[in-house]
Amino acid sequence: MNKAFIIDEDRKRRLGFEEVIFGASKSVALLSDLLKDYVEKDKNVLITKLQAEKAKHLLKDFKTAFYDDESEIFMLSHHEISNESPTRIGIVSAGSSDIGVANETYYTLEYMGVKSEVIHDVGVAGLHRLFDHLEHLKTFDILIVVAGFEGALPTVVGGLLPQPIIAVPTSVGYGTAKTGETALHAMLTSCANGITVVNIDNGYGAAMSAFRMLNLIEK
Amino acid sequence: MNKAFIIDEDRKRRLGFEEVIFGASKSVALLSDLLKDYVEKDKNVLITKLQAEKAKHLLKDFKTAFYDDESEIFMLSHHEISNESPTRIGIVSAGSSDIGVANETYYTLEYMGVKSEVIHDVGVAGLHRLFDHLEHLKTFDILIVVAGFEGALPTVVGGLLPQPIIAVPTSVGYGTAKTGETALHAMLTSCANGITVVNIDNGYGAAMSAFRMLNLIEK
Amino acid sequence: MNKAFIIDEDRKRRLGFEEVIFGASKSVALLSDLLKDYVEKDKNVLITKLQAEKAKHLLKDFKTAFYDDESEIFMLSHHEISNESPTRIGIVSAGSSDIGVANETYYTLEYMGVKSEVIHDVGVAGLHRLFDHLEHLKTFDILIVVAGFEGALPTVVGGLLPQPIIAVPTSVGYGTAKTGETALHAMLTSCANGITVVNIDNGYGAAMSAFRMLNLIEK
Amino acid sequence: MNKAFIIDEDRKRRLGFEEVIFGASKSVALLSDLLKDYVEKDKNVLITKLQAEKAKHLLKDFKTAFYDDESEIFMLSHHEISNESPTRIGIVSAGSSDIGVANETYYTLEYMGVKSEVIHDVGVAGLHRLFDHLEHLKTFDILIVVAGFEGALPTVVGGLLPQPIIAVPTSVGYGTAKTGETALHAMLTSCANGITVVNIDNGYGAAMSAFRMLNLIEK
Amino acid sequence: MNKAFIIDEDRKRRLGFEEVIFGASKSVALLSDLLKDYVEKDKNVLITKLQAEKAKHLLKDFKTAFYDDESEIFMLSHHEISNESPTRIGIVSAGSSDIGVANETYYTLEYMGVKSEVIHDVGVAGLHRLFDHLEHLKTFDILIVVAGFEGALPTVVGGLLPQPIIAVPTSVGYGTAKTGETALHAMLTSCANGITVVNIDNGYGAAMSAFRMLNLIEK
Amino acid sequence: MNKAFIIDEDRKRRLGFEEVIFGASKSVALLSDLLKDYVEKDKNVLITKLQAEKAKHLLKDFKTAFYDDESEIFMLSHHEISNESPTRIGIVSAGSSDIGVANETYYTLEYMGVKSEVIHDVGVAGLHRLFDHLEHLKTFDILIVVAGFEGALPTVVGGLLPQPIIAVPTSVGYGTAKTGETALHAMLTSCANGITVVNIDNGYGAAMSAFRMLNLIEK
Amino acid sequence: MNKAFIIDEDRKRRLGFEEVIFGASKSVALLSDLLKDYVEKDKNVLITKLQAEKAKHLLKDFKTAFYDDESEIFMLSHHEISNESPTRIGIVSAGSSDIGVANETYYTLEYMGVKSEVIHDVGVAGLHRLFDHLEHLKTFDILIVVAGFEGALPTVVGGLLPQPIIAVPTSVGYGTAKTGETALHAMLTSCANGITVVNIDNGYGAAMSAFRMLNLIEK
Amino acid sequence: MNKAFIIDEDRKRRLGFEEVIFGASKSVALLSDLLKDYVEKDKNVLITKLQAEKAKHLLKDFKTAFYDDESEIFMLSHHEISNESPTRIGIVSAGSSDIGVANETYYTLEYMGVKSEVIHDVGVAGLHRLFDHLEHLKTFDILIVVAGFEGALPTVVGGLLPQPIIAVPTSVGYGTAKTGETALHAMLTSCANGITVVNIDNGYGAAMSAFRMLNLIEK
Repeated sequence: MNKAFIIDEDRKRRLGFEEVIFGASKSVALLSDLLKDYVEKDKNVLITKLQAEKAKHLLKDFKTAFYDDESEIFMLSHHEISNESPTRIGIVSAGSSDIGVANETYYTLEYMGVKSEVIHDVGVAGLHRLFDHLEHLKTFDILIVVAGFEGALPTVVGGLLPQPIIAVPTSVGYGTAKTGETALHAMLTSCANGITVVNIDNGYGAAMSAFRMLNLIEK
Repeated sequence: MNKAFIIDEDRKRRLGFEEVIFGASKSVALLSDLLKDYVEKDKNVLITKLQAEKAKHLLKDFKTAFYDDESEIFMLSHHEISNESPTRIGIVSAGSSDIGVANETYYTLEYMGVKSEVIHDVGVAGLHRLFDHLEHLKTFDILIVVAGFEGALPTVVGGLLPQPIIAVPTSVGYGTAKTGETALHAMLTSCANGITVVNIDNGYGAAMSAFRMLNLIEK
Repeated sequence: MNKAFIIDEDRKRRLGFEEVIFGASKSVALLSDLLKDYVEKDKNVLITKLQAEKAKHLLKDFKTAFYDDESEIFMLSHHEISNESPTRIGIVSAGSSDIGVANETYYTLEYMGVKSEVIHDVGVAGLHRLFDHLEHLKTFDILIVVAGFEGALPTVVGGLLPQPIIAVPTSVGYGTAKTGETALHAMLTSCANGITVVNIDNGYGAAMSAFRMLNLIEK
Repeated sequence: MNKAFIIDEDRKRRLGFEEVIFGASKSVALLSDLLKDYVEKDKNVLITKLQAEKAKHLLKDFKTAFYDDESEIFMLSHHEISNESPTRIGIVSAGSSDIGVANETYYTLEYMGVKSEVIHDVGVAGLHRLFDHLEHLKTFDILIVVAGFEGALPTVVGGLLPQPIIAVPTSVGYGTAKTGETALHAMLTSCANGITVVNIDNGYGAAMSAFRMLNLIEK
Repeated sequence: MNKAFIIDEDRKRRLGFEEVIFGASKSVALLSDLLKDYVEKDKNVLITKLQAEKAKHLLKDFKTAFYDDESEIFMLSHHEISNESPTRIGIVSAGSSDIGVANETYYTLEYMGVKSEVIHDVGVAGLHRLFDHLEHLKTFDILIVVAGFEGALPTVVGGLLPQPIIAVPTSVGYGTAKTGETALHAMLTSCANGITVVNIDNGYGAAMSAFRMLNLIEK
Repeated sequence: MNKAFIIDEDRKRRLGFEEVIFGASKSVALLSDLLKDYVEKDKNVLITKLQAEKAKHLLKDFKTAFYDDESEIFMLSHHEISNESPTRIGIVSAGSSDIGVANETYYTLEYMGVKSEVIHDVGVAGLHRLFDHLEHLKTFDILIVVAGFEGALPTVVGGLLPQPIIAVPTSVGYGTAKTGETALHAMLTSCANGITVVNIDNGYGAAMSAFRMLNLIEK
Repeated sequence: MNKAFIIDEDRKRRLGFEEVIFGASKSVALLSDLLKDYVEKDKNVLITKLQAEKAKHLLKDFKTAFYDDESEIFMLSHHEISNESPTRIGIVSAGSSDIGVANETYYTLEYMGVKSEVIHDVGVAGLHRLFDHLEHLKTFDILIVVAGFEGALPTVVGGLLPQPIIAVPTSVGYGTAKTGETALHAMLTSCANGITVVNIDNGYGAAMSAFRMLNLIEK
Repeated sequence: MNKAFIIDEDRKRRLGFEEVIFGASKSVALLSDLLKDYVEKDKNVLITKLQAEKAKHLLKDFKTAFYDDESEIFMLSHHEISNESPTRIGIVSAGSSDIGVANETYYTLEYMGVKSEVIHDVGVAGLHRLFDHLEHLKTFDILIVVAGFEGALPTVVGGLLPQPIIAVPTSVGYGTAKTGETALHAMLTSCANGITVVNIDNGYGAAMSAFRMLNLIEK
């Protein structure tokens, strides 16, 4: 049979970023082949949603790689982050259970060469925690707001602050949380205006959409 | 055939309140029969979810009845509200579109002989509107919080105030609001502790559960 | 990176109860950090939905903690329950499979310093079991009714007794039980009046909403 | 084009009953053609779920037909009911809003030449109404139990009585009643043993399954 | 705390059958307690949906018990089946993957003292297999038809045979089979008349509803 | 603003067929503009899912157009059907309520210059009606099978006949028919092998996929 | 009772834009009151999702207002658009049925004082139509991509162009289009990276999120 | 009890292909019995969806069998593929995660004696990869297009190429991918005309429907 993959080598030219690998549904054998191909072509590598068990196998052959248990991010190498570049992106999480998704955003931005900062655990059940950070949050160009359960945090932030807000629903919760569906639907139907939303647990996608917005600043 | 209904005449003794009539699925003919039976037995009458078209027909025969278009509440007579009784129940609504459900709660309580007050349109997209009423909200024994769209208001109120909170999701919104399902699920999976919830658009049920709680105060 | 959590130290003042920890989605490492912080600050600790495997790890370091397998409740210390305080809250379960959720309510109330009593296995398929307890049930101020499968018990109780009723759907059942969704929806659309509902398997939330209602009695 | 229908003339021989017509999705023109064909072949005719507007048109041409607004049943002629035949089937409805579905069952049985009796409005919110009829209900061979909202009545009846029980969920209710889906799922996952269920609002199907069971008695 | 269960000792008198135990959500400890109580009271015992792992534990203490891997049925003792009693009930399965559910029905009937016969693997994709058994199927008083995937078999049988038909959807299939929901909905909306349906994988419930129907024959 | 549409004039070259117009969501004004553009360019026109009310308006200006009430098809002109061309496509419908969808297929094929034949009302509840047509059905190259309710007909046909089978679920039915979703899911999870499926009520799509298959014959 | 609404007069200061009115669930009486209040306070007014019937009534009293039938947008007055300002935002629609949502975006931007341009009907079934506009699309800073049915257009655009992309699913389609849910889910799970999404038919929300992004350019 | 299966030995005559075995829900014991029966009758054997764990057991007894981990296909023997036969069927996959389903199609066709070719990883996020293969794709008679996530590939292919297109949604993705449901619904509601669809992950079904279409060529 034919080779099972074709790397989109033109993506960088078209979009300004390279292809990354979705790890969850691929076998270790296939991922190993892919990694070798990337390494040979001297490309950076990011694998998302890589289960710990599979990461363990790959780390044996790719010893310099970085793997984060909470976010299931696997990185072989990445763009340099200049020390002078400002921290334009704030990642705000509702609860400490959202750490995995917040980290996925953080490391993806690091991989893209972009500095960000995570403000953890400022959920709506204790609003003063958010208000304590409000002045700090005003300093970012873009806000990525991560929340599970009822997903109210992006709505509250969106009513208080004028920046672009990328809402990330997480699958944290049980019962009517419906593995993130309720937070997703709540964010989409938010009474706060002009919030945009990405897929459930898609910290990676939030980072990439922030990356697209950074194009606007450079101009 | 047999008569199509049996009034639960024992309910008052058991539960402290009488049977009310769900109007949405009954024909005008059946409702008219029911009303006559209630009147004959000298009982108070409350019909909920009565469509305007059907109300128009009934108002011809029952001229003293009260009908509210926004809430679709039809009342023939009700318990007296004593002037001295304190206003124990605050009804808080997120948006002015929630007026129908807020009114259903208000008029049901009136029907039960209970004073309440509605604070309209203090939704989460403009939090200061809520904060402006916070001290006032502290004076109520029970809070009924009505919200559509993403349904975040009960979560925010529940994080700020210690009273029993009855959350009422409304079917206001479109798309992922899913005619109230998203607000309902968000309220049930709220990160604020100890909120209880009733059915979508069920202003009547919220009033009745508040009524049950009033038993606790009398003791 | 920043610390992954912020304890809401003001919650006690605002709401009368402290923050508890949702255990299901947190790693052992994160939970261990949280526990140390609570202990240092001399706070009581309750973790809900803590999987047995993770509890085993934490019990090694926190030897005095209490853990209940059925309810997945982990407690490090709690409020004293005065011997004189009356048992105001009755927890009624439909089947013996509901024991986990009933226990979650029971231990949460114990943690809050509140006495309660569980009446197990009085489901609707054998109504006489409920009727045998009816006089006893009348003695409670608040009833928490726990049921899986079709979730009919709160409706039956609500038709017989006048107290505030907090219905808790459980995920017991299979097929159309839909891991608790059917019981939840049945309780929300109950033909009995004034029942309020919490999330599926949310024994913790039921306890907290009962706790809010106890405020009404003290006055 | 070809004729749009083929009457299953063999059904009577195979199953003991004739084909009936589902009216909801057919145009008046098509129904009129069908009726003429039935009349020509000297067959009995039953149309179910026939909207009032369409019935009005058909009644002009088929003046002797019977039409019931509540159940949307249209009958041109039916089997004789012998005066001596016992009333073997009891139809029990939870609320007076369920009258349409209860009538659909009643008239379908009449069409099949079978006597039945409807006991209306004995829902679970006022259990004593059911208990008042319990001795009478024991006299039937088969019970058809019709309920909307949370659909608890068949569970309660099934826990009290030993006959075959056919549960019919109705679309009465709103919000989480989900146009009958919740009652349906509740009945299917009932904790009472050996209840069988038919489609939402399918009073016709309940009658037909009772008819199949009558075969067992004749033996 | 109180004992976690109350055996419905009156059920046999009311309904003609005793309580059985739902095994899926109970711990081994609780099941063991229940079994001891049943044994002490000299009652027959049937546990349904008992996972193999838990059965292994119980079989150590209750060595004479019978356990069937396919159906997850556990039986300690049961009613005698008289050799003279006719085989009134035919269990028809669509595919060999449905064996677990068909067995659950078979063994439940055995437990109730009722003879039945299983005709396996006569699904609709090869209709002639069904036609080969048609004359044999006519000899049963009641047909229980078990099918997964699209669940068409009860519809086909219902169009060919006049007996009471109890349709049992199974969770066999993948994708749009939706763990039995599609078969369930298909059976409920069958174009064949008078089929009744039980919960997904509920072989036990089908047996119990057949048992209720047997009352009709005795008369 | 710009013109609201761009006709895909290249489609004929690429795919062998021209663009058609989806009528359901377009205003009469927009449709009128589109029709004029098509007429000017001397193109054939087919509008699908055009509500009767809107068709009435368009027929005033485009007097030679054909409109079929049952299928909501609007045609201004179409490809010639040669008299010699064989009838390669059989359209089989389960019930006479499916006539609208069957007609949509028939007229779309007519529009494409392809002969077809409809065999109505051979649903599974009376299998002999299908068997009576079996020899005739063998003569077609392609079978399009249209069914609502439980959607069993394509499964039965697929088990009996070897041709390509395009299954079309219809929204005929109520309750668990779920406006066609159950038939759709049943067809997709059919135990008969190699059936393909199109969207609910998509008679047009079935015709177009048959048209694509005709390419195979010409070779 | 109290007044039914509170205008968030502080929103402009906080977020840079004023409150707009959701028209779909408000009565004409309530809307009229709101409009008068806005006019008195000399504020701009935008009402979204205002049904034509209700607009007709309001236009009688507010004669200078603008109303667009396709988008159901009602505007009383708006911010000036400077002639020199560049057209930074491109609105791309998949089909001519998406015109209503595209217009909602266009007019909302106009209301905010922002120029935009709509490129209609460049859906994926005729890709060359998109490619014909590709160079033009590169000139915009932000792209808003509107699509119904399977919602593939944002994925294709996102694979070709590097700008921020706001995807707007529309409720155009039938059957499995599920009134926009399928397009919504498809856009959220797009294999193209960094697309963000708003609610179904939420042209207004897309405009507002683009407005938030414009802040980035000014800096 | 009776034997648990009946092989449809007539299928080959009726449909041109033999029965295959669905492995996912069968125990090793049952599968082993089935295999022995097939071997005895000298029939070819294909098992689909056979979990690796169960395959390991069967491979011990059936040593010559072929098993593919990615697709979970198990083959004991198959039809010869003639070297001269042209490669009529192209299998196109959107991503390398779709390899399992693509392989299921490939090996099923091999089992049927039909040559095919897989073109991997030409998804919509990098359209040029598809365009690079376009001329090659034109050479196939039938295209089977496999895609997960948003499932856009069949729509794009269907807009570019005139052959019959069988779309296969896969369960690759997370969150709103809904284990393949979104791709399925997107393909069914595609704006490209005449695409047909099979069940989620049903590579086997796609192969079989292509096999049915090959009948058209032979004529």
